[in-house]
Amino acid sequence: MRLREIFGTNLRRLRHASGLSQEELAHRAGINRNYVGLLERAANSPTLDTIERLAEELAVDPVQFFEKPSGR
Amino acid sequence: MRLREIFGTNLRRLRHASGLSQEELAHRAGINRNYVGLLERAANSPTLDTIERLAEELAVDPVQFFEKPSGR
Repeated sequence: MRLREIFGTNLRRLRHASGLSQEELAHRAGINRNYVGLLERAANSPTLDTIERLAEELAVDPVQFFEKPSGR
Repeated sequence: MRLREIFGTNLRRLRHASGLSQEELAHRAGINRNYVGLLERAANSPTLDTIERLAEELAVDPVQFFEKPSGR
């Protein structure tokens, strides 16, 4: 499983757990509204700074984005 | 501690553990020789794809780049 896929799968799961829509999360993190969808579909490679902003808005530890879904 | 600092500190620690120089790691990961040093000093924000290549060359789980040094 590519790291993009691990990240995207975890991003979607953690966003759902937070109750935020893709648009709400994008707005809060200051990124493009379509970009969250691209990341969840593993269609783009975010920078570490973007990953940090997403973690802050979801109130999660960034390490949670990188845990393999099968291992949970 | 900013995520860049956590990443950079872990990158340096894991690179030392592998016995590779910054130049050797850069060459194997196909990135600029100076870029590894920038990342270890938290002076740049790498993409997820670069993080994946570095993890592959160091033979570590990417999650290890995001564990807080104080928690180890």
